[in-house]
Amino acid sequence: MPMTAFDTSDLAARLGATARGRAARVRALTSAEDAGPDAIVVATDADAAARALAHGPAALVVARGVELDDAAGCAVLEVDDPRLALAHLSQLFDRRPAPASGVAPSAVIADDARLGAGVAVGPASVVAAGASVGDDTRIGASCSIGEGVRIGRGCRLFPGVVLYDGVVVGDRVTLHAGTVIGADGFGYAAGPRGAVKIHHLGSVEIGDDVEIGANTAVDRGTLGATRIGARTKIDNHCQIGHNVTIGSDCLIAGMTGIAGSTTLGDGVVLGGYVAVADHLVIGDGARLAGRSGVTKDVPAGETWAGFPAQPYRRWVRGLYLQGRLERIWAVVKGRDADR
Amino acid sequence: MPMTAFDTSDLAARLGATARGRAARVRALTSAEDAGPDAIVVATDADAAARALAHGPAALVVARGVELDDAAGCAVLEVDDPRLALAHLSQLFDRRPAPASGVAPSAVIADDARLGAGVAVGPASVVAAGASVGDDTRIGASCSIGEGVRIGRGCRLFPGVVLYDGVVVGDRVTLHAGTVIGADGFGYAAGPRGAVKIHHLGSVEIGDDVEIGANTAVDRGTLGATRIGARTKIDNHCQIGHNVTIGSDCLIAGMTGIAGSTTLGDGVVLGGYVAVADHLVIGDGARLAGRSGVTKDVPAGETWAGFPAQPYRRWVRGLYLQGRLERIWAVVKGRDADR
Amino acid sequence: MPMTAFDTSDLAARLGATARGRAARVRALTSAEDAGPDAIVVATDADAAARALAHGPAALVVARGVELDDAAGCAVLEVDDPRLALAHLSQLFDRRPAPASGVAPSAVIADDARLGAGVAVGPASVVAAGASVGDDTRIGASCSIGEGVRIGRGCRLFPGVVLYDGVVVGDRVTLHAGTVIGADGFGYAAGPRGAVKIHHLGSVEIGDDVEIGANTAVDRGTLGATRIGARTKIDNHCQIGHNVTIGSDCLIAGMTGIAGSTTLGDGVVLGGYVAVADHLVIGDGARLAGRSGVTKDVPAGETWAGFPAQPYRRWVRGLYLQGRLERIWAVVKGRDADR
Repeated sequence: MPMTAFDTSDLAARLGATARGRAARVRALTSAEDAGPDAIVVATDADAAARALAHGPAALVVARGVELDDAAGCAVLEVDDPRLALAHLSQLFDRRPAPASGVAPSAVIADDARLGAGVAVGPASVVAAGASVGDDTRIGASCSIGEGVRIGRGCRLFPGVVLYDGVVVGDRVTLHAGTVIGADGFGYAAGPRGAVKIHHLGSVEIGDDVEIGANTAVDRGTLGATRIGARTKIDNHCQIGHNVTIGSDCLIAGMTGIAGSTTLGDGVVLGGYVAVADHLVIGDGARLAGRSGVTKDVPAGETWAGFPAQPYRRWVRGLYLQGRLERIWAVVKGRDADR
Repeated sequence: MPMTAFDTSDLAARLGATARGRAARVRALTSAEDAGPDAIVVATDADAAARALAHGPAALVVARGVELDDAAGCAVLEVDDPRLALAHLSQLFDRRPAPASGVAPSAVIADDARLGAGVAVGPASVVAAGASVGDDTRIGASCSIGEGVRIGRGCRLFPGVVLYDGVVVGDRVTLHAGTVIGADGFGYAAGPRGAVKIHHLGSVEIGDDVEIGANTAVDRGTLGATRIGARTKIDNHCQIGHNVTIGSDCLIAGMTGIAGSTTLGDGVVLGGYVAVADHLVIGDGARLAGRSGVTKDVPAGETWAGFPAQPYRRWVRGLYLQGRLERIWAVVKGRDADR
Repeated sequence: MPMTAFDTSDLAARLGATARGRAARVRALTSAEDAGPDAIVVATDADAAARALAHGPAALVVARGVELDDAAGCAVLEVDDPRLALAHLSQLFDRRPAPASGVAPSAVIADDARLGAGVAVGPASVVAAGASVGDDTRIGASCSIGEGVRIGRGCRLFPGVVLYDGVVVGDRVTLHAGTVIGADGFGYAAGPRGAVKIHHLGSVEIGDDVEIGANTAVDRGTLGATRIGARTKIDNHCQIGHNVTIGSDCLIAGMTGIAGSTTLGDGVVLGGYVAVADHLVIGDGARLAGRSGVTKDVPAGETWAGFPAQPYRRWVRGLYLQGRLERIWAVVKGRDADR
């Protein structure tokens, strides 16, 4: 594989960065600890910059205004947002080839399935009747694309992804290995001889530019659709219940579960291990701290935490007060003793 | 696909409903929001009924005694239990064909495996030596049926299900995509050179009419069997540990984990994110609220909540008292100040 | 399958046990409840021993010094550690044959992939370009081994395991069904038009003798590697974030998640449902009780619990004090009433 190399002047232009010090040619994007003489390192603060400089990288990306003690031998690129620079650089230095297009001999494609130009379907994958796959979408090995599924352009499905019948996926969606979209929701009625299954006739609709992590499950709607808005990112091991609506630009960290019929607005951020009960409304831009257990609606823009979840400052105050219990108990016992 | 159509008089007979108002012919079961002039909608309360009527459905199912303001143009079916009616209607309107029977050319069936009549085995699936699959059971793509596994009649395995060797599955069992049954339990002994694995020689036995959600795992017993009773329903992303016994007619919501050797009675209901510690007994009909962390036995019929889990009313009282901490602290500080 | 049979004198030698009472020939290792006249049972305490004796096993393994009321008809083997004896016996009585070596006709092996001697690759599995698989490693059905992956000797991959490109796996590693190693971490930067993905150029390195349970996910590092040390055991449904470093000889129970860039020392024990926040350090030998939510560093050797996690004794004291709230509130209300 030919090495990629960039001049720092070129990188400065791409990142909108201000170049300081010497120019350099860089061949690798590395962490501070792995930096070598041809590496560029992104430092998110002054400490990280100092650690990086100790390893003698060719170039260093820092936030504007960060003071550097000894960067004499190093090209320095000042940017507004080092994390955004890291994202751009990581794309630039990602030399892994995209999977080749083409249908593997062992893939099983239904006669009436439609595959766009440049589509890849990996070994042992199935594309069922009536399904369509947009141009340049790459489907890994052992995936199951159910009947009537529609997948947009430029998507990437890693191995072992299962899309049940009727699921609709937008453009440029990434689904990581083992993710299951469109399984039946957990819905039963109490009948005279045990639970009676509610057949799930609805579907799942996933917007453009969504990414969903490994082994996550998104259940189909009972009658309508479970919806995930454009640009929303969902981590591994999440559970999105039936009839849930998630807005656009949400970030949902790992191990989080959202129970049936709950609605998330746009730009909602959920930490890891957040559990949201059913039939709730989480307003636009609301943030839930990790391990929150949400039992009522959360207003737009607010940050909540704890279980049952409450406004963050109240939760912190509650922890403080719990920390006073030893003193409280001592006083109360003393008072009792007075009697 | 030919549209299904039903007269409301026919539906009334099937549901044991009392028909009111005009008769109608319905072609779709929809949510209130998606209702059109040929739709039937199930409304679980008066509010939902009003919302549905605003969309002009052909027919409306409501609980007996619900007052409707303006249902003149609509057939009304009164039932004892709208949710049960929804379950029955959802089955009636589920027009998705069952997978065709037959063994895919790319499936690998051991010579001595026995497949009943009408069995389907999907592409790239494996049925190993000594396994048997009952009549009319449909196995999706990329499933692995281990050595000596016995699967009953009329089961449905979605793509990517893995049954380790020796697992026994009853009749009419549904296993959703990515579910793993019979992996080794998490058991090690401390040895002089690190953990020594306890080989798991037991199995898993799953009763009739069980449904298990996507990406759930049920571990095999150490020496005996991990058991799941008839008609029990388990949601996505659950973890059932080795040697667990679950009774019949239980409902276990998503993200719930049950640690090794714990026993659940019949009719137990666990909310989402419930964690049950090992070697406990949860009595018949006990209910655990979502996010409970159960550290001791729960008596039959009781509802518990919280962590460590406690009787529900005590948990609610505890939350109330925590809400009084601000006032308590003010008083205690005041008393201190008095000194 | 020929039955295995052992004389208790032979077993005593293998286990380092002291044989008492009569000798016997045993053909099965069972639980106390399933014991028959040719079974050996391991009893971890006197109660379990009494239960086992009621079923008349051929032989009983107990800890040295356990008093047995009526073991006349039974061979008794006294050991230092019954659980370790169970582990050794379980291996001895595990008669399940290892999967046969050989590449299934439907497996897809890249031209330049290297397979060692005695390797098995199951049906529909893929070994991509540049990957290498060590001697005697057995890969089940429907596994995906990505480009450049290196797997050591004597490993076992159950069906449906996915290793993304570049993952490195040591010797004698067991990966259970549905486990995903090397998916992208959950990393984005905030851009002007939504989240910008941070490409994950790092990898995952798994040490020797590691075992990872079903449906667990280990994300690849952003630039460096996510690392799991030798002999560490991880249960089902765990989530190991990008850039995490886990030491050797750790035990991580099910449903546990470790967020990005956190470091665990050697010999750390995490109970089930433990959530560890990002960028923390958990010292050697630290123990986290089940359902802990860890928000700061945990010193080596300490046991912590609760959320936010704190030293175990302080957590227990906190629960005690919460249990005093009813009394505290009564006193405070009384004082208020005095005014």
